[in-house]
This record gives sequence, structure tokens and C-alpha cells, in this order.
Amino acid sequence: MLRSLTALLLLAIFWACNPAPEVDSETPEVATAPPTKAEYALVIHGGAGTILKENMTPERAEGIKAAMNAALDVGEQILAAGGSAADAVEQTIWILEDSPYFNAAKGAVFTSQGTNELDASFMTGHDLQAGAIGGVSNIKHPISGARAVLDKSEHVMLSGSGAEDFARDQGLEIVDPSYFYTEERYQSLQRVREHEAAATNDATSSLEFAQDQDRKFGTVGCVALDKTGNIAAGTSTGGMTNKRFNRIGDSPIIGAGTYADNASCGVSCTGHGEYFIRYAVAHDLHARMAYGGQDLETAANTIIHDVLQPAGGDGGLIALDKYGNIAMPFNTPGMYRGYAKAGEERVILFYEDEE
Amino acid sequence: MLRSLTALLLLAIFWACNPAPEVDSETPEVATAPPTKAEYALVIHGGAGTILKENMTPERAEGIKAAMNAALDVGEQILAAGGSAADAVEQTIWILEDSPYFNAAKGAVFTSQGTNELDASFMTGHDLQAGAIGGVSNIKHPISGARAVLDKSEHVMLSGSGAEDFARDQGLEIVDPSYFYTEERYQSLQRVREHEAAATNDATSSLEFAQDQDRKFGTVGCVALDKTGNIAAGTSTGGMTNKRFNRIGDSPIIGAGTYADNASCGVSCTGHGEYFIRYAVAHDLHARMAYGGQDLETAANTIIHDVLQPAGGDGGLIALDKYGNIAMPFNTPGMYRGYAKAGEERVILFYEDEE
Repeated sequence: MLRSLTALLLLAIFWACNPAPEVDSETPEVATAPPTKAEYALVIHGGAGTILKENMTPERAEGIKAAMNAALDVGEQILAAGGSAADAVEQTIWILEDSPYFNAAKGAVFTSQGTNELDASFMTGHDLQAGAIGGVSNIKHPISGARAVLDKSEHVMLSGSGAEDFARDQGLEIVDPSYFYTEERYQSLQRVREHEAAATNDATSSLEFAQDQDRKFGTVGCVALDKTGNIAAGTSTGGMTNKRFNRIGDSPIIGAGTYADNASCGVSCTGHGEYFIRYAVAHDLHARMAYGGQDLETAANTIIHDVLQPAGGDGGLIALDKYGNIAMPFNTPGMYRGYAKAGEERVILFYEDEE
Repeated sequence: MLRSLTALLLLAIFWACNPAPEVDSETPEVATAPPTKAEYALVIHGGAGTILKENMTPERAEGIKAAMNAALDVGEQILAAGGSAADAVEQTIWILEDSPYFNAAKGAVFTSQGTNELDASFMTGHDLQAGAIGGVSNIKHPISGARAVLDKSEHVMLSGSGAEDFARDQGLEIVDPSYFYTEERYQSLQRVREHEAAATNDATSSLEFAQDQDRKFGTVGCVALDKTGNIAAGTSTGGMTNKRFNRIGDSPIIGAGTYADNASCGVSCTGHGEYFIRYAVAHDLHARMAYGGQDLETAANTIIHDVLQPAGGDGGLIALDKYGNIAMPFNTPGMYRGYAKAGEERVILFYEDEE
């Protein structure tokens, strides 16, 4: 009796001491979902910000929804046919970049000099390879510039005219900078300039006003899980209206705006970029799962609501884990977001109360 | 008997299930050191790379050691007098930036266009504020440019002429770009160009050759812990000899080259920048301590030897935790490194076997 109880005691201690899952462990990190992998999954965002029902026309809502559906269609087709997560991310983002509704490529906001400066980043989770470009003005699809840096260069991050030369060398489609001009975004710049002239020397006020202008729309991003279990993530943006000093936001920064690791998750962020850099938000999601044993939803919600929100960092993220579980938290009034998943109904949402 | 054994069993399970320390926990993460904080601590590096005894002259070794001692003197004086970690980091790095022995500011390597492009980043651990500048050519002390972005701007990262305009507006010392010219670094560029001309179209070979040229010297960095328990970290570099396409390395990237959080550690990295970006090395050190409960030394060694080395990522890092424990791992033949700590003998080391 005593001997068997001692054995039971030792067994119990051994069981209780079983260490937390490591990065490469096959133990599922998501406790709430069954450890079965979705055949494929695809999640997108079109920016987080002051997206309010009362400011939305039915026509505009339809246009945005149609663009998001078209983007998900393209990516889902690739994944359903057995294509790679990287191809799905790149082609899905092309559709969002081509749409004037989002602040990326066609639709990009204007800098204080009246130019469009585009940033993008790309990462693949099976090999932790990454590519990014910053401050380019003539690459039609910046996301493809970022992927070309990943695929074809020894570097991770190229910027300005150097990044443009590289993209041209790689045969990417180059356009005249005027291609990125849209009347709506140009008028946004004019409003910010007028506000600035009125509020003389109040740099903070004009920065906030510019951010308010941008927050109606935003950066785009996509994360995909393919049939083989590979994860890829990408982000593309036109930056901040009236930005100065060649400011670089989080979108072209691996670890801030974009991260992917097959062992944990893929993620693309949108919001007030400075906070996403300081908190290394994209890598932090991976780290909370890999080292802290948190599931995707807990980790994503903690970062957006418990870390960024109290610090004043507006924004959101989209992410998926290796099982195809999806998280899309944000702490702003809205975020254009949606996903497609094998065997599940497609979801496209704008506002908070739709969750 | 049975009842008391059952109670013991329950107690044992409870004890064994005791959760790992959280981020904000006051439980010391460093098991090997007593949980008493050093009065202050300061650690520096002057780059990791192919630093070999057989290629070192006594004069050169003395010169490098003198510069490192002078740098530690300045920082230690500030900390001993009760100054801030941020002031200590900035002033310590000034000395290293002014020395032609290191690849930062005076001593910076040349790009393929024959220019010097400087990057720097800065972070304070009590408020997680950060600043960085990339690709500047006329700021005498790039580390002060990075700190000015932290202190005086709404942004985290500025680049090129925008960063230069900002630094000028802030009253930082501006120099003619020719100030950064050193004969030794210019000859390095010529050797790389000659090698490239001989090895026609072999971009990989010339990149490796360029890295070999750089790896003799390197980036500089500093991390400090002040009397109040605040941590600050900074990194400054001249980049990569013969670099093209406006390549951005890890040094100006918060989370890759530099990170600081009072709750865990401060860190500055040096090495093959692309790997440090992909693995978000600086933030990863913080995350392994904050979420994984690892102590500083375990976390730092794991990243440098078990993650980066197998992946082919050459380099090292310097770091300290909130108690003033110091880690300086590297996977190259050498790293210029040293530290000063209240009540301990000063340490300055170059090679591996000195550890």
C-alpha cells in the first residue's frame, strides 16, 4: 500500500513537472481548438482605424467588400489548388494594392512633399527568410518587391532608389510615380496642409490630424497557411499622410509589421507604426506562443488590448497559427478584415460590434 | 497514514505545478546570481568578426584597448555620479564613434558609391521609447541623432536626408561628409572592387569578400544599468563595405540590433545583419527572459550558439539584465568587448580563448 502510494506520488510529480512546450514541440499550443490542421487558411486586413458606420456610404461599403472578396478569391484558389502560402499572400495583396480603397500602392497617401512613398515586407515561416523595401515610388506592386528581396538577394531590407534599381533588375513592373496619384488621397494632403497652416507651429496637433485622416483607411496585409503546413505573411502600405523626415513605419520592418514562423504563427499588423516598432509586435506574437505557451487568440488579444491600448498604441493585427486558427484583434473603432478557410463560411467584417 | 500520504501527494502536485515567473514578477530570472542589483553596470562592443591574434600588431591592440578604456571611463563616470543609463550609453558611444578603429561614424566603411552611410538606434527600458536613423552622411554622432528621434520626435525611425534635416533642426553637430573619410576604409573598398572586377558577375563571392573585409572590425554598441535601475541600449554602425541598393542592416532596427526593457534586459548586437533581422535577435533575448523564464546568460548563449550559428548567422551581442549580470556571447573568432561594474575589476577582451 505504502509502496504503491509512493510510486503514485512520484508519478504525479513527474507528470506535473512535464515542461511547457518548446518552439519545435509538436504539442498543440491552442488549447481551445482541436489539434487538427485546417486544409488551408487565408486572412487579410485593409487597415485599422476610425472606420465608423455613420461615415460609410452603401456604395463605398460595397466597393470595399468587393475588393476584399476578390482578394480572398485569388488567394483561396491558389491554396485550394495546392499552391504555396507565399504565392497566395503575394497574389492576394496584389488585389488590395490595385484597389484605391486601401492605403497601399494605388491608393497610397501623400508625403509632405506631395509624393507617394511605398513600403512592404514579406516573410516565409518554413525557412524564416524575409524581404522588405522602404520608400519606393515606382514599383507597381511593392509586395512583389519585398518578395524579390527575399527570393533573389542576400539582403533583407533595401530602401529608396536602391530598392527601385533592384526591382528593375529583377524585371518587376515599374510605373511612373504618377500612377499612384488618386484625387481622394491628394485632397487628404490638402486638408492636412490647411489644418497645419491654421494651427501654426502645433506639430503634435497636425500629426494627430494627419493620423485621423489616414485612420479612415489603411495598410493592407495577408497571412496564409497552405496544405503542406507552410505559413507566409506580407504587409504593404503607403505610409502616413504628410509624413516628413523620410519617416519609416512598422510595415517594412520584419518583427514589427510582419513575422512568420511555421512553429508558431504568421502575422501582419496595421496601426500607429511607432508603437508596433517599440513593442516589436509581430515578433512578440510569435514569442508569446513559442516561449510563453500562449495560444494564438490569447497572445494576440493580450498584445492589442493589454499592452498596446494602455500605452496609446492604436491598431490591430491579423494572424493564423499552424492549425489555421485565426485571430483579428484591434483596439480602434474598426478594421477591414476577413478570412477564408477550407470548409468554413467566408467572413468579411468592418466594425467592432460585428465580432 | 493513507490520509497524510494523500495530503502529501496533493501538496507535491501543487508545488510542482507552481507556475514559471511572469514578466513583471519580482522573482529573479538569474538563478546563478544572487538577486542583488549591482550599483551600476556598463558593457560595450566594437564589433564581432574575424579578429585574429596573428593579424594584430601590438600598436593596434593598444590603440583599440585605449579607445575602449576611454569609452568605459566616460560611461562609468556618469553612472558612478548617479547619471542616467541613457546619458552613459550616448557619451560612451561618442568615444567609439570618434575612434577610427571601429566601423561607426569616424571609421565608417564605404558604400559601392564611395560614400559613408551611417545608421544608429537607441532605446530606453523604463518607458520602451526608441529612436533610430538610417543612411545619414553628415551627422557627426549618429547615436545622438537616434537619441534625438527618441527624445524630440513623434517617430521612431527616420532615414536619409529627412533624418539629416531633423538632426540639423535639433541643433546636432553636422559635418561635411568628407569628415568620415579614412584611408584604411577607402583601401578596403578598393580591394573589394578589385576582387569584384576579377570575379566577374559572382555577386555572392564579392559579398562574402566584402563581409570578410568588414569582419575585421565592426559596429559599436553600449548597454548601461544606472543606480535607479533604468536600462538603456544603443548601437551605431557604418554598415557594410561596398553595400548597394541602400541596404539597411540590423543596427537601426529596434528589435533586431537594439532593445531595452527594464523588466528583462538591454542588448546591442553586431554581426551579419540580415540574420539579426530575421531572428529579431534583440527582442528575442527580451522575450526568452520575459516569457520563457530564461536567465540572461542562457538566453543570450542559446540565441548566438544554438539558433544563429547553425543557421549561418555570424555575430555576437552584449547585454545586461536588471541586476547588472553581463553576457557577451559571439560565434566568430573574436569580438571587441568589455564592461565596467561597480565594485568589480574592468574587463576588456578581443578573442575567444580569453573567455
